[in-house]
Amino acid sequence: MLKTYLYQDLDQAKIQELINRNTDPNNSIQDTVLGIVEEVKTHGDAALKNYAAKFDKVELDKLFLDASDIEELAMGISRDQMRALEIAFQNIHKFHSYQTKRERTVETMPGVTCWRELRPIEKVGLYIPGGSAVLPSTLLMLGIPARIAGCREIVVCSPPQNNGKINGFVAYCLKLLRIERVYLVGGAQAVAAMAFGTESIPKVNKIFGPGNQFVTKAKSLIQGITDVAIDMPAGPSEVLVIADESANPAFVAADLLAQAEHGADSQAVLTTTSASIAEKVNKELISQLAILPRKELAAKAIENSYVVICDDLQTCMSFSNAYAPEHLIIESDQWKSLVNKVVNAGSVFLGHLTPESAGDYASGTNHTLPTSGYARSYSGVSVDSFVKKITFQHITEQGLDQIGSTVEILAELEGLQAHKNAVSIRKKA
Amino acid sequence: MLKTYLYQDLDQAKIQELINRNTDPNNSIQDTVLGIVEEVKTHGDAALKNYAAKFDKVELDKLFLDASDIEELAMGISRDQMRALEIAFQNIHKFHSYQTKRERTVETMPGVTCWRELRPIEKVGLYIPGGSAVLPSTLLMLGIPARIAGCREIVVCSPPQNNGKINGFVAYCLKLLRIERVYLVGGAQAVAAMAFGTESIPKVNKIFGPGNQFVTKAKSLIQGITDVAIDMPAGPSEVLVIADESANPAFVAADLLAQAEHGADSQAVLTTTSASIAEKVNKELISQLAILPRKELAAKAIENSYVVICDDLQTCMSFSNAYAPEHLIIESDQWKSLVNKVVNAGSVFLGHLTPESAGDYASGTNHTLPTSGYARSYSGVSVDSFVKKITFQHITEQGLDQIGSTVEILAELEGLQAHKNAVSIRKKA
Repeated sequence: MLKTYLYQDLDQAKIQELINRNTDPNNSIQDTVLGIVEEVKTHGDAALKNYAAKFDKVELDKLFLDASDIEELAMGISRDQMRALEIAFQNIHKFHSYQTKRERTVETMPGVTCWRELRPIEKVGLYIPGGSAVLPSTLLMLGIPARIAGCREIVVCSPPQNNGKINGFVAYCLKLLRIERVYLVGGAQAVAAMAFGTESIPKVNKIFGPGNQFVTKAKSLIQGITDVAIDMPAGPSEVLVIADESANPAFVAADLLAQAEHGADSQAVLTTTSASIAEKVNKELISQLAILPRKELAAKAIENSYVVICDDLQTCMSFSNAYAPEHLIIESDQWKSLVNKVVNAGSVFLGHLTPESAGDYASGTNHTLPTSGYARSYSGVSVDSFVKKITFQHITEQGLDQIGSTVEILAELEGLQAHKNAVSIRKKA
Repeated sequence: MLKTYLYQDLDQAKIQELINRNTDPNNSIQDTVLGIVEEVKTHGDAALKNYAAKFDKVELDKLFLDASDIEELAMGISRDQMRALEIAFQNIHKFHSYQTKRERTVETMPGVTCWRELRPIEKVGLYIPGGSAVLPSTLLMLGIPARIAGCREIVVCSPPQNNGKINGFVAYCLKLLRIERVYLVGGAQAVAAMAFGTESIPKVNKIFGPGNQFVTKAKSLIQGITDVAIDMPAGPSEVLVIADESANPAFVAADLLAQAEHGADSQAVLTTTSASIAEKVNKELISQLAILPRKELAAKAIENSYVVICDDLQTCMSFSNAYAPEHLIIESDQWKSLVNKVVNAGSVFLGHLTPESAGDYASGTNHTLPTSGYARSYSGVSVDSFVKKITFQHITEQGLDQIGSTVEILAELEGLQAHKNAVSIRKKA
């Protein structure tokens, strides 16, 4: 059963407590991760092979699989599974391909022309979790925007199974993405390998992808100590559902459980205008939970979750904006009037027939999204994440005439004589 | 005199040495900065007043100036200076206003509709250095995109002069931006105040702005320990000039010196196809340097700088892309053919009459740019930096019919039964 709060009874301190995420800064593992990072930096491939033996229980001769290995593994999955991955690929590709539009050139003054152009980040590293979790969808969500951006080198790391292979679904996605090599490295050691480079693994400019607490900690560490960027800080996954009288309690419960099954630290929040809906959702949770394979995990996550009963949809939305959920599902006939009121969220699912799982896999939007309240300042992954926008400008003689004295006055008042001189010397010429 | 290298004599290790920035990770000041951050977090305004007394030599009753104070200070500058700041404001506003274009809605399958919408980051903090440096231009470069994005709250911190005021130029820019309050706080303590909030100063979602090594260190620390984002990592400013026979050596020298006067740790790199140009630039450096007010600083920066003589423009560009300069100036008649070859740079200045100082102040582009090689993975500040892009989706009954089985197959193969169920339960309804 979800803990229940009436919004009108909540003071500011209690709201703050509810919207705070139960994030563990993981300082306990900091030293372990730093040790792994240093080891990989110093010993390269040898360190990676040792970690494969230790953590993945496999002796590796070489640290990668190439195109023929990938092809063979990919052929092991069913025709229906191939087709489902292809449809997901197509939809994600279609949606992301509209994110690269060229901006117009702006003449800010006669003869002063400025514009921005996109350039791919040259080398990107994608971390795809493995082991018990099999996440081909994550490879599509990172690999497709990297391809659309035109990144020159896409380095994929994924932990080996104990037979020294990777999963066939991931292999099929590599094939769809035309990526001909996958490095058999997992955990913090994979992040370190891509940040520093080893004999086998190229150093990259930016590292993407989800992972366990070791991977996450390694990403935040390397961001502080190297020139390598990361996609975003990461925490446990979460959903917030806004539901009114028009909602179907069975759908709402299914959506909360889809979040809850990710792990015990996931959070599924319901805000609703209806106490009766809240009650019915609770009943549905009990019956649907009972038949889930991952019910232990999901039940624990539900214990960390809650429902807030509000007077109206606007109050539900205010609570949601304060919470800043990774996923927001609006299960109301009134969803159209709420779109403009969404301020903080990663990805938003509108109406009764738009489950989060559609966006998790196949509708086209990205599923790599800001958690833990980072939706207040970060966007999800998109083609933008794989490019730089570089500004260009060109000034003609007329332009210099127009803008010159302004630059001279401003350089002078900031006390930067050489800045002024770079203009003056050209005016005199 | 610039140290001179022939590209053909450089091996990969030497190139790597040349492109490595002389960045000090500042671990020596880490404890000091962490102490300041903790003090502000714990004691709020009282700590800020103590630091003002200690570092800025001023006793403050209240920690901010309001609209009437700002108005009075702003009126103290000359009419020409006002006009120059207004022209800069207009050009920057014009260029940045084209960065918010609405993207189209994409129907990835019949009945499956996805789109992105921009939302402002609600609360942003702008740090504007003060004291010896007076940087009204930085306030324009950060405040204008924040206004265009529509940020609800723009918190500006700038260190007080020892009379408890701020500079009139900064005050005039606050007026142009319709910002009615400025907080009299500088250094690491300003960053901490905006990250945690104090009695006077609101907590923000993202912190922008340049600063000395204490400010920079504080930004990188709070990024690791709070949910507050920062604009980008920062290091000393730098320029790389590509010049061929068509270049005017006096202009090239003026551009190198404009960079050098920022500080002894600035770097000004020249790559050229012409040994004769290199020689003439060196002569110009000597004569132009002699008459600069900041010649000691600039001379030290020139000592850290160098020229690389290459066989052709393409090699110059390859070196530049490896270096990934904050500012790139292409002083060649051939600039048009080089635009597409720029891969890594913050902002690019094209042709003989386009000095970097135009973009530093008034042409319209932003001057808050990635340094220290971060141009390989980061863009400069733009309206993008002040917004989130949120994905939305809506699925109809037809859409669910189209996409449902794909989602079910993918959820199944990832072992996530509740994800599958969120679709199945809707298909059955």
